[in-house]
Amino acid sequence: MSDILRRGRLSKSPDEEMRAYTSSMAADKWIFEADLHVDLAHTLMLSSQGIISKSDGAKILSGLLQIREEGMESLDFSYEDIHISLESRLIDLIGAEAGGRMHSGRSRNDEVATCIRFALRGELLSLMDDLMVLQRVLVALSQEHLTTIMPGFTHLQHAQPTTFAHHMMAHADALERDIVRVISAYSRVNLCPLGAAAFASTGFNLDREKTSRLLGFFKPMNNSMDAVSSRDFLIECAAVFSNIMIHLSRMAEEIIIWSGQEFNFVELDDTYASTSSIMPQKKNPDTAELMRGKSGTVIGALSALLVTAKGLPLSYNRDLQEATPNIIKSSEVTCASVRMMAGMLKTMTVHADVMEKQAPLGFTSATELADTMVRDAKIPFRTAHQIVGTLSRSSSIEPTLEEIDAIAVTVIGEKLSARGLSKEAIEEALIPMKNIERRAVLGGPAPVQMKKAISDKEKQLSMFKSQISALHSSVEDALDNLIAEVKKEI
Amino acid sequence: MSDILRRGRLSKSPDEEMRAYTSSMAADKWIFEADLHVDLAHTLMLSSQGIISKSDGAKILSGLLQIREEGMESLDFSYEDIHISLESRLIDLIGAEAGGRMHSGRSRNDEVATCIRFALRGELLSLMDDLMVLQRVLVALSQEHLTTIMPGFTHLQHAQPTTFAHHMMAHADALERDIVRVISAYSRVNLCPLGAAAFASTGFNLDREKTSRLLGFFKPMNNSMDAVSSRDFLIECAAVFSNIMIHLSRMAEEIIIWSGQEFNFVELDDTYASTSSIMPQKKNPDTAELMRGKSGTVIGALSALLVTAKGLPLSYNRDLQEATPNIIKSSEVTCASVRMMAGMLKTMTVHADVMEKQAPLGFTSATELADTMVRDAKIPFRTAHQIVGTLSRSSSIEPTLEEIDAIAVTVIGEKLSARGLSKEAIEEALIPMKNIERRAVLGGPAPVQMKKAISDKEKQLSMFKSQISALHSSVEDALDNLIAEVKKEI
Amino acid sequence: MSDILRRGRLSKSPDEEMRAYTSSMAADKWIFEADLHVDLAHTLMLSSQGIISKSDGAKILSGLLQIREEGMESLDFSYEDIHISLESRLIDLIGAEAGGRMHSGRSRNDEVATCIRFALRGELLSLMDDLMVLQRVLVALSQEHLTTIMPGFTHLQHAQPTTFAHHMMAHADALERDIVRVISAYSRVNLCPLGAAAFASTGFNLDREKTSRLLGFFKPMNNSMDAVSSRDFLIECAAVFSNIMIHLSRMAEEIIIWSGQEFNFVELDDTYASTSSIMPQKKNPDTAELMRGKSGTVIGALSALLVTAKGLPLSYNRDLQEATPNIIKSSEVTCASVRMMAGMLKTMTVHADVMEKQAPLGFTSATELADTMVRDAKIPFRTAHQIVGTLSRSSSIEPTLEEIDAIAVTVIGEKLSARGLSKEAIEEALIPMKNIERRAVLGGPAPVQMKKAISDKEKQLSMFKSQISALHSSVEDALDNLIAEVKKEI
Amino acid sequence: MSDILRRGRLSKSPDEEMRAYTSSMAADKWIFEADLHVDLAHTLMLSSQGIISKSDGAKILSGLLQIREEGMESLDFSYEDIHISLESRLIDLIGAEAGGRMHSGRSRNDEVATCIRFALRGELLSLMDDLMVLQRVLVALSQEHLTTIMPGFTHLQHAQPTTFAHHMMAHADALERDIVRVISAYSRVNLCPLGAAAFASTGFNLDREKTSRLLGFFKPMNNSMDAVSSRDFLIECAAVFSNIMIHLSRMAEEIIIWSGQEFNFVELDDTYASTSSIMPQKKNPDTAELMRGKSGTVIGALSALLVTAKGLPLSYNRDLQEATPNIIKSSEVTCASVRMMAGMLKTMTVHADVMEKQAPLGFTSATELADTMVRDAKIPFRTAHQIVGTLSRSSSIEPTLEEIDAIAVTVIGEKLSARGLSKEAIEEALIPMKNIERRAVLGGPAPVQMKKAISDKEKQLSMFKSQISALHSSVEDALDNLIAEVKKEI
Repeated sequence: MSDILRRGRLSKSPDEEMRAYTSSMAADKWIFEADLHVDLAHTLMLSSQGIISKSDGAKILSGLLQIREEGMESLDFSYEDIHISLESRLIDLIGAEAGGRMHSGRSRNDEVATCIRFALRGELLSLMDDLMVLQRVLVALSQEHLTTIMPGFTHLQHAQPTTFAHHMMAHADALERDIVRVISAYSRVNLCPLGAAAFASTGFNLDREKTSRLLGFFKPMNNSMDAVSSRDFLIECAAVFSNIMIHLSRMAEEIIIWSGQEFNFVELDDTYASTSSIMPQKKNPDTAELMRGKSGTVIGALSALLVTAKGLPLSYNRDLQEATPNIIKSSEVTCASVRMMAGMLKTMTVHADVMEKQAPLGFTSATELADTMVRDAKIPFRTAHQIVGTLSRSSSIEPTLEEIDAIAVTVIGEKLSARGLSKEAIEEALIPMKNIERRAVLGGPAPVQMKKAISDKEKQLSMFKSQISALHSSVEDALDNLIAEVKKEI
Repeated sequence: MSDILRRGRLSKSPDEEMRAYTSSMAADKWIFEADLHVDLAHTLMLSSQGIISKSDGAKILSGLLQIREEGMESLDFSYEDIHISLESRLIDLIGAEAGGRMHSGRSRNDEVATCIRFALRGELLSLMDDLMVLQRVLVALSQEHLTTIMPGFTHLQHAQPTTFAHHMMAHADALERDIVRVISAYSRVNLCPLGAAAFASTGFNLDREKTSRLLGFFKPMNNSMDAVSSRDFLIECAAVFSNIMIHLSRMAEEIIIWSGQEFNFVELDDTYASTSSIMPQKKNPDTAELMRGKSGTVIGALSALLVTAKGLPLSYNRDLQEATPNIIKSSEVTCASVRMMAGMLKTMTVHADVMEKQAPLGFTSATELADTMVRDAKIPFRTAHQIVGTLSRSSSIEPTLEEIDAIAVTVIGEKLSARGLSKEAIEEALIPMKNIERRAVLGGPAPVQMKKAISDKEKQLSMFKSQISALHSSVEDALDNLIAEVKKEI
Repeated sequence: MSDILRRGRLSKSPDEEMRAYTSSMAADKWIFEADLHVDLAHTLMLSSQGIISKSDGAKILSGLLQIREEGMESLDFSYEDIHISLESRLIDLIGAEAGGRMHSGRSRNDEVATCIRFALRGELLSLMDDLMVLQRVLVALSQEHLTTIMPGFTHLQHAQPTTFAHHMMAHADALERDIVRVISAYSRVNLCPLGAAAFASTGFNLDREKTSRLLGFFKPMNNSMDAVSSRDFLIECAAVFSNIMIHLSRMAEEIIIWSGQEFNFVELDDTYASTSSIMPQKKNPDTAELMRGKSGTVIGALSALLVTAKGLPLSYNRDLQEATPNIIKSSEVTCASVRMMAGMLKTMTVHADVMEKQAPLGFTSATELADTMVRDAKIPFRTAHQIVGTLSRSSSIEPTLEEIDAIAVTVIGEKLSARGLSKEAIEEALIPMKNIERRAVLGGPAPVQMKKAISDKEKQLSMFKSQISALHSSVEDALDNLIAEVKKEI
Repeated sequence: MSDILRRGRLSKSPDEEMRAYTSSMAADKWIFEADLHVDLAHTLMLSSQGIISKSDGAKILSGLLQIREEGMESLDFSYEDIHISLESRLIDLIGAEAGGRMHSGRSRNDEVATCIRFALRGELLSLMDDLMVLQRVLVALSQEHLTTIMPGFTHLQHAQPTTFAHHMMAHADALERDIVRVISAYSRVNLCPLGAAAFASTGFNLDREKTSRLLGFFKPMNNSMDAVSSRDFLIECAAVFSNIMIHLSRMAEEIIIWSGQEFNFVELDDTYASTSSIMPQKKNPDTAELMRGKSGTVIGALSALLVTAKGLPLSYNRDLQEATPNIIKSSEVTCASVRMMAGMLKTMTVHADVMEKQAPLGFTSATELADTMVRDAKIPFRTAHQIVGTLSRSSSIEPTLEEIDAIAVTVIGEKLSARGLSKEAIEEALIPMKNIERRAVLGGPAPVQMKKAISDKEKQLSMFKSQISALHSSVEDALDNLIAEVKKEI
């Protein structure tokens, strides 16, 4: 059979290479289910609006269900995209008299935009679930390690003592913002362009509210030209994914550093490690490395989307086809990475003893020591900073009152012991756990604060859970209803 | 005077080139006002918590107000950043005994994070205002051009007739999503890291709620390690800006194409045009071209932020300093571009006559003609598509019933006139304005729909206006109150 | 059989999802042929160096040839990469006693680096050929259109008249630099890392010169740590590809604009066009649009590579695996795009009549008119510019001597006719072809110059042809010799 | 005085904000010297070709020299760019009768393209010098540390022992390719667009060879349309810079990791470190962190250039103005970073004792042990890999022959001692320095190989030095000659 689209207007056929260059069939696997649902909803609406007859509508719906059962493999992959391949298969099955009416009041422009939103919505819902799992893993780790002391780092240098709970909750807080961003992006994804047709809508009396509702969208998009031309929702999602991958790359970097011989803070479960083809002793944190590397792929997809969209006049341009594989890649990699991270953290062995032993190294109590001088000897902080700074040049982790006094005399011409600084206060300042317990302001590592943080987080996660469940149900109910409506008609 | 930070710990001073390499003073102009407010709020809190004495507090506050009056130029630019340069100036003014106490319970890590959020919040508020102005320009243009017929494009080919109002409202709808994204990002920007100190919070009894409130933030950030380490809010904002610039680049592309001799749809006001140094007759749409080009700069800043943040372990790393100039550049360019676009559109001459004359070219009524066949001759759309497609090979814009019948006979073996297609129906289908009026479904170009779209948009803009005003007031009131509190203390 | 790598060191196996996340088997199709050749060359060398016995060597070589015949499909895709899957298949075929010796003195780190260079070298050679074809198409078009007048554009505004040959040769010159860059990059790609092993080379007495020569590389890479860690050659190639795609995106943009109703300068052959699913009259330049869009994908791959490589310590890190799919994608898209562009240009219809008619519009002879005033009336250019600029406000394309004199009086207080400007000179200045003929300096559009440019280009292309042929032969001869050597051993 | 460009064609002036948006004056500081030289060379040529009189030429040349002495600050910054501001200043100084003739046969399009190439050429020459210095620092470090043992890493896990020399030379080899790329890019930068005018060249009888020669370029660019439209040379340079920054980011990452308490392999000189405002003991590797972060800025500039150039039709478009600040930023950051890296490495303290102590940890001799089994017990490598892999699960660094035999029995049913493996061979395999000495194939860490590598490198550097010196001289001689020619004329 001749190409149902090109046979009218164009006389020559593309050759194989040009077909491969322009076809979107490979990426369209991602929207096969979406496209079928869109066809079903559009047909139901055409029929209920009297644009096609009930009996033509029934034939189309039956044909579509049959195609759904056959699966995408049954389609002719030499067509330029799934929409026209599917329509062509439908006409093969039920004839042109009925099948040729499905595309009334519709263009591939609004159809593909609807399909992308349908499929991407599914990815976002999965991602919300995956991020929630990761949150719970982080909270559980924090709960377990409320008093696991570790060196806190700035500039990858030992800075002050903290707890593993405090460190894990930092990642949890960062990822919580990612959840909010995914939910926010969802509200701009889950909108229905169907009915915009090529860009000018159509003279057929479509009911756009109906198709939007049948497909589980929040509402139809407004302006029909905007509906087919805009891909800002893809850029937004890819940016949200990039932020997630950046967060994961930072966690992965830590896992990699912590797994090495020098740090030895953690050990990954064998499942997430690989060995070497030449060095038999190696146990490498490959999953974490790949995750760090895959941040590049997701950011690359964002760049691709931005470059592709730049400078396009309205309305639809074929450039936009190139956007789809990039959003597929970036959403798939992001979802998988979030799941891998949850698995890695959950099964990882934490070497609490190593971390605790390292905690005081690098004079990590220096800040608390300076603060103690401020409190007890009433000197300005900047002066205390200078005294302890000078002290630390000699790298002693456990300075004595005498050493401190000696330096104080050169700096302020006075001993701190004379101003109230005691040996006991110094000794206490040098104990890591005392440092931590003192850091009890909102957000600090003191166990009392961390317990509160965990409890707040749990409340927040419950709220997210309800919100995400509602989004899931709303889509599932709509699609169940759509299939039920279809079955009533055939 | 020796460097108030380095004198303790480090023995050697950086040379000139290294200083230039590591200093952030140039970018810090952007946060001078922010830093002063942060210092004021922190000092007020230290004093009310009894961490420093009332009298030391009063001295510091007076000194800060004096520095504010002197302006940033009075600072020593050889320091590595504004925070330490400002503290150093304060100590010069009021002495180390009081001035050396300001930095108690604080690090530059939480300070700079707070300053960036403070300054960026201001940029976002301006951007909201600018986007609102642009919306109103687009709405006004649409109102004026409800019945200005133009060729609608897909693939930059004439596709179907539409109106200039429909086209402008497409841009307005796209930019409306940008407003929502700016407001959404604002909720993650306007949070207060102050009190997180280096990353571990502090043993001093800070009141983080108080400083947050004094500075007009929604609330303190939670985890203190996250508070100093995270720059996802910058990436989010840069992505929001990039989406805006993509939208503007698309509008700019249209203005450029439309201004040329071939299109001649619009003419920019002289203010936004330039001429050539060699070709005296030229009037070039330079502002639109630069705007299209500047999308590159904003996207480049997003790339820079992503690359910089990738793979950093917690908590603060100096790499993050490099993020600030990129966010400054991207926010400034975006705000200016939005304003330029509003100005260009407002002052642009629209050649309605040219657009109307071009509207039917390229057989833009072909779709309506096919739809008419479907409605009147009851043939399937796909068949009508084939008949009109064949018809259009001969490029005739005004086909006759006879021509149509001749093709129909070869395609379906029957004349369409025999199935009810009339000469009158064909003629009507070929009139651009009739095409447009028929496209009256939700979002379509029919004037009746566009009026509704404009009215809905105006309601939406009023809602935004209230929301944005509230955000403005909340910040302004807080800062007014902060200064009032400061004045009470001195 | 248990995993030949993991069975020693690691106790747990990865689950399905983790396997999918970390496996490179999908991308490894690209290096199947390369890997086989690398195995053959390495085995030949091991045997000739006496590291393995001749008879073990012969068994391995036979096994490898059998695997080559079976094709990649016969391999077990549950392995993490092709190297270990292929080795495992080899051991299945010939037993562990011989097969287990192939990997002596080798690691996957040097193996994969060699394979990527082997495969990418093939892509670069193809790309050189494709670019040469495109050059010849551009030269042929230029030859044909030496006197086809068209409006030359700056700022997409009519600027001065030029010829289609001049325009096409501009693209040819830009793409010529791309050829040079591909050849230059090739010299850094075609180097052999084999023998670097994991990064430290090996204690076995390898002959690195021999394997390099057998595989057709220029020479072995030096430092063994650099050999396995560096991917700068991928970044360089992706940047070269990006520059090519930028050039193609600019040509594509022109084709798209020129194909529309307003310009109508060219018409694409049906093969490279598509129609609409709804608008039957449409003939869209889809191939050009997709090409413009695909510049995004190639630039995205470059971004991905850069992000992935950033901040990695030496030597090999698994992140690098993520680089390969990005270079594959970008090289494939670039090669295909170059071929598509050649096809589009070759089959495109050029509407010389339309272009010629448009050439004078927009007062494109204004510069020549000003130059004429400079030459004949001896006024400074800047003054002539002002006079013609004022003249052009009234938009007259054919100004008279009287109009010019009137303006000259207001500007310089004197008539130009009084200073020697004649009516005839003005008339000549206004003729587009005269404008063009006058522009006969090096690189200008005058047919006499364009003929010279074409002749120079043809000489240059001949030189490239010899150079590229030599590169092809050198690889082909080496690989033919490799297979011959292998056959001698078995 | 009214704007010398706009006064003719345009009636309205841009307002302040629009002026700021479109002006390039800030970035033009970078090309002030270039623009003066271009003006001098163009004027000399106009005069020698008789296009302007000798006396007008002399006046212009004198005026230009005066402007050069006054410096850029004396120019009027309200002009849109330096070219027209400089021309305007010239006319102020010497009058319009002579000054108004300088721009004959020229456009800002070819002028700015020439200036960018002139200025960028200078940056590339500096960069070559800076990279040479860095090479010499790396070579000196390697020379000094030929036998400094350290753990070699893959996946940031201890892998096999190597030397600090081997590690440093890996970086030197990578950066050597960067030098080649800079020199290669230079050959496409140092070409002269002058004489292309707006894009169509000019009717004046210019001598393009002469201006090219006077300005020290290799030759004039060919096609005049390409000459003003192309910015692929900027993209190429930005990509070369990005590759350099990636290399530096990897070195910086190592310095940062190595400086921490866990590794403690090196300590930066105080000059390149900073301390904390709160934690007085801190010595942070800030310069290395900033360098790693600045890779983002350079990559961001590359992205910006690519986005800006994408999809622009020929010839000049104002978008290109936006390219310049991006190339300035990226070249300045790259040059400074290379210099900083040289300084850091040169002054860094290497803790050879710490590295040596760490070298055997993580069973880094496992590969050599397996190789020894292959050599002495004649078992296949894959079998030896399995035996040592199993051995390493028990983490023993110094396994005994008995342990090995026990495992061998379970794997191959035979003791390795029975096949010739001796206690002595095992002990030797476990000595790091013996491992290293055995790795004496081309590119390996054995001191004998490293000495050869250093000697080869030194020869290579001498060759680069001659090549780079010649490039420097060629430019300097040309510019000296230009000034001499100018002085002869006035």
